[in-house]
Amino acid sequence: MKCYNIAILGATGAVGKEMLQQLFEQGLSHHNIKLFASKKSAGQTISLNDHVYIVHEANNSCFKDIDIVLSATSSTVAKKLIPHAVLAGATVIDNSSAYRLDPNVPLCIPEINPESIQHHHGIIANPNCATIIALCALFPLHKQAKLKRIIASTYQAVSGAGNQGIEELNYEIQHHAVQTKTFPFPIAYNVIPQIGDLNENQYSDEEMKLLYEGRKILNTDKLEVNCTCVRVPVVRSHSISLFAQFESTMNAELAKKLYREDSNVVLCDSTSYPYPMPLYTSHQNNVFVGRIRNDQSHIENAISLWCCGDQLRKGAATNAVQIAKLLLDSWN
Amino acid sequence: MKCYNIAILGATGAVGKEMLQQLFEQGLSHHNIKLFASKKSAGQTISLNDHVYIVHEANNSCFKDIDIVLSATSSTVAKKLIPHAVLAGATVIDNSSAYRLDPNVPLCIPEINPESIQHHHGIIANPNCATIIALCALFPLHKQAKLKRIIASTYQAVSGAGNQGIEELNYEIQHHAVQTKTFPFPIAYNVIPQIGDLNENQYSDEEMKLLYEGRKILNTDKLEVNCTCVRVPVVRSHSISLFAQFESTMNAELAKKLYREDSNVVLCDSTSYPYPMPLYTSHQNNVFVGRIRNDQSHIENAISLWCCGDQLRKGAATNAVQIAKLLLDSWN
Repeated sequence: MKCYNIAILGATGAVGKEMLQQLFEQGLSHHNIKLFASKKSAGQTISLNDHVYIVHEANNSCFKDIDIVLSATSSTVAKKLIPHAVLAGATVIDNSSAYRLDPNVPLCIPEINPESIQHHHGIIANPNCATIIALCALFPLHKQAKLKRIIASTYQAVSGAGNQGIEELNYEIQHHAVQTKTFPFPIAYNVIPQIGDLNENQYSDEEMKLLYEGRKILNTDKLEVNCTCVRVPVVRSHSISLFAQFESTMNAELAKKLYREDSNVVLCDSTSYPYPMPLYTSHQNNVFVGRIRNDQSHIENAISLWCCGDQLRKGAATNAVQIAKLLLDSWN
Repeated sequence: MKCYNIAILGATGAVGKEMLQQLFEQGLSHHNIKLFASKKSAGQTISLNDHVYIVHEANNSCFKDIDIVLSATSSTVAKKLIPHAVLAGATVIDNSSAYRLDPNVPLCIPEINPESIQHHHGIIANPNCATIIALCALFPLHKQAKLKRIIASTYQAVSGAGNQGIEELNYEIQHHAVQTKTFPFPIAYNVIPQIGDLNENQYSDEEMKLLYEGRKILNTDKLEVNCTCVRVPVVRSHSISLFAQFESTMNAELAKKLYREDSNVVLCDSTSYPYPMPLYTSHQNNVFVGRIRNDQSHIENAISLWCCGDQLRKGAATNAVQIAKLLLDSWN
């Protein structure tokens, strides 16, 4: 079995740490794994399953001989470093939003558009976390009836803003004090209806991602999206309340049947676990759905549903490592 | 100024306590105020603004000479006691769901349908908390353009389940332990997408209230509603993400203009306070709106907005005492 050099860029962050774990979970730990992070983290060690990894400083020249870079940095850092990784011959799977809408960059959810990665030019983008979770939840229905319109309201965990989001929630709860270093307002015992900057149309960056990235991933300009993104005091796992309208026949019964036949999405409808919740879907790789109901407002072929997924796993690291597997399969 | 006998039934609960405070805030404290609660609370005292009130035991014969009963008990207790209050000659303003859909019982939000109380037969119902907050937020737009459809996702505070909801959240956070006495699943660091029992159509009782009560309050059978009700780890004040479609012209600019001209709803759109949030709308009597946006999914005359309101205040006690004021005005 050929051994490749796989680097994690931003290895000490919330997503970077999950990426290392995913390399083990998805059976890629026999490759040479190298961890990179900012200068201040260089020299740290990260241990996992009896392996000890030293964190190296990321810089323009660190990508020599690297085959795959799993990048979990900010967009700003991604734009600085990724071109150097590509020049050095690596294929970069980037979790930031820097390249997602670039027409030369595939935007891939392996369950939905695995073929997209065939046409990369050195960069493959990992979609936005809430977009991955919503589209994974809707794809089994989209395959059957073609998605026409999504009206979504999200309940997004603080770790979507990285380790510092978790620290801020914990600090505010423990000290009964306000921090607002990471979030614009207190998050403990509060909800904040803004994630990312507001655009001129008053939709936030995060809200526009479901529209733009959703259209690119499903390869249609006709998908209509209205989204409201909200931060809630949950540590991990995003939840989304979805209204979904389809081009052809869709109803609650059909949706449940399609979910039961699908191997990627977990339908929760048992007595003891009647719907997914963030506390129970954390640290898991799947997307979970529940509360499947026919639309009561008489819009044709429309249903309501509720979905949850760990945004550090399937919403980020799990999806990125799944892309790496696709890539490795195509090389072997 | 004539002095009436006003009783609060369920005076030691979260809503009952707010009702007493509202009688003071809304200038009704010169009336004779009498507090009733269950046998186990009888004998307690409640102090407010140098007044000390003794809590008496509520029973079938306690309503003699009472003119107005503000009732803040469960539906079960309401159904047992309220008929006795009516027989004794009192007018009851009931905050439970027991009588809300009874065609002989007015369901009143004073800003929207004050005239409805003229035709009561001893009982006037106070609407569901999320219904009051959503309808108050939408009414200034409904007056102009007639509401056609609401698609709502709620973010409801734990005190919607009374004092024990607050205690459960605090217990779980302080003890890092699960309680689930009041909520079916842990609420700390979680969100629970169910409030009330699930009906055969898979919508919860709470979700159906916005449809049934909304139609009754706005006096139309044509209002379409699709609602998802979710409990979040917030102490006080419900938030609702609303998609609203209208019969005639509506857009974000017009909606903002209508809100600026309205004296009941507060539009939040300043730099320092760009949208309402539960932490800042608690202990206030108004409903607050923000994040007003044109629908991006190309449904005609539709907008998205975000609203918050203290569900113990405007969603319950404030609204009930406003009804009491209407009633007293009609008697003088």
